[in-house]
Amino acid sequence: MRIKLVVEYDGTDFHGFQRQTGLRTVDRSLEEAICQLTGEEVRVKGSGRTDAGVHALGQVVAFDTICSIPPDRIARAINTKLPADIRVLSSEKVLPDFHPRYDARSKTYRYLIYRSPEGYTLQRRYAYGYCRPLNLPVMELAANELMGEHDFRGWMASGSNINDTVRTIHTFSIEENWPYLTFEVAANGFLYNMVRNLVGTLLEIGREAMPLHNITTILQTGDRNQAGPTAPANGLYLVKVEY
Amino acid sequence: MRIKLVVEYDGTDFHGFQRQTGLRTVDRSLEEAICQLTGEEVRVKGSGRTDAGVHALGQVVAFDTICSIPPDRIARAINTKLPADIRVLSSEKVLPDFHPRYDARSKTYRYLIYRSPEGYTLQRRYAYGYCRPLNLPVMELAANELMGEHDFRGWMASGSNINDTVRTIHTFSIEENWPYLTFEVAANGFLYNMVRNLVGTLLEIGREAMPLHNITTILQTGDRNQAGPTAPANGLYLVKVEY
Repeated sequence: MRIKLVVEYDGTDFHGFQRQTGLRTVDRSLEEAICQLTGEEVRVKGSGRTDAGVHALGQVVAFDTICSIPPDRIARAINTKLPADIRVLSSEKVLPDFHPRYDARSKTYRYLIYRSPEGYTLQRRYAYGYCRPLNLPVMELAANELMGEHDFRGWMASGSNINDTVRTIHTFSIEENWPYLTFEVAANGFLYNMVRNLVGTLLEIGREAMPLHNITTILQTGDRNQAGPTAPANGLYLVKVEY
Repeated sequence: MRIKLVVEYDGTDFHGFQRQTGLRTVDRSLEEAICQLTGEEVRVKGSGRTDAGVHALGQVVAFDTICSIPPDRIARAINTKLPADIRVLSSEKVLPDFHPRYDARSKTYRYLIYRSPEGYTLQRRYAYGYCRPLNLPVMELAANELMGEHDFRGWMASGSNINDTVRTIHTFSIEENWPYLTFEVAANGFLYNMVRNLVGTLLEIGREAMPLHNITTILQTGDRNQAGPTAPANGLYLVKVEY
C-alpha cells in the first residue's frame, strides 16, 4: 500500500531534503527510520526538494510498504525511530498512484524575517536577521503586482533548465508583528529558489535600493539581473501542500 | 577599568554558564573571545549561573581590562570573536567595585511552554513541549499566592546549602498566546532551580494533579516533596538583571 506522510523538520542540520551520497538528508533519515521499523528498504518521494537550512511544517512524502501497521499509526511508529529534528505529523493510506509532487495543486511557503538586533541569537536558525528600515507599503504594492499568472523566470535560480516558467501566485501576504516580518506565498507551483529570490527582491524595494517598477520590468523581460539577491535559506518554511 | 556587558545566548549547546574543565561554557567562550581581542587572560563574573540548556536574553557579566578600546565599542569588538550562539548586546564602563551578582536588585526569568504537537520540532531548543490541557485560572491563583516575600526553600534544588531562603517575588505573570504559554517571574533573587521548580508545580496544579492548597502547605512547611517536578531547562530564559 502507498502511505502519505505529513512531515515537519528543522532544516538547519540537514543537507536539504534530497539524497546526496554521504550527507545527512531528510529523505534518507525517513528511509532509515522506516527501514528500522519495517525491515523494508523503501524510497520516499517528496512534494519537492527543500535546500539545506530550509524548514518544513508540512512537507508531504509518500512511500510503498507491505507492513501490517495500521496506516494512521505509522506516523507515531516512525517517530520512535527519528532524530529530534524531524517529526511525522500524520500518516494515511492513499491511492497507489498518488504522487506528492505531480498531484500537488497548491503549495504554501513562509519566509520569516527577524528585525531586531536583540534576541536574534535565539532566532538565528529559524529566521533571517534583517535590521534595516523597510518601506512596507511599497513592498505590499510589489507583492500585489506579483499575484496572478505570470512568467517568473526572472526569479528562477540561474542554471535551472525548466521550459515552462509560468506559475500562478494565489496569495502573497506580508504581515508585520514586531520584531517579525512574515511573507506568505501560495502558488500552484514554484521555480527553483523562486520564493527566496522574490523575498530578496522585495527587500531591495523595501529598503528603497530598487524602484517598484523593476517588478514590471522583470515580469516583462524575465531578466534575472534586475532582481534582488537570493534571501538566505534559514528564513524559509514549506508550510503546506494541497491536493 | 571594569566593563559591564549585557549578553544573550542560546544555552542549548553550552554546558551552562560557569566554567567546568573540558566543557564548553558561556564564561569560557567570553573569556576566550576577550583574550583574542585584548591578549589579556581575564576572568568574567556573571550575575548568576545558568544551567546547561538555559538561555539568556540579558545576562550581565563584568571583567577588568587595561585595553584601549572605547568601552561602548567593546561589545561589537568581542562579537567578532564569538561563536554564533552567544552575542554581546552592549558594553559600558562601570565603577571598579561593581559586582554583577551581589549588586543585582532584581532579576527577571521567563519560562516558555509550547502547547501544540505541531511545529514543536522547530521549537524544541527554545520551549518546553507540553500538550496536556491546563486550568489557567487556577494556575493564576497559585502564581498570585507566590508573589511577595516568602521562604521558598520548598522550591530549592535538593542538596543546595543556602541558609537564607527568603526571597521576594515582585511579579509572577502567566500569559497565553496560543500555542505559547509564557511565565514571567521577577524577584530580588532566586534559589537554585527555583523558577523551574515553581513552573513544574504550577503545571501539576494546572493539569489538576495537585490541589491549589499545596502552595500554602509548601510555603508553610518548606516541604520539597509536596512540590512538582523540575521543569526542563530548554524553556527557561534569564531575561534581565536590574541594578
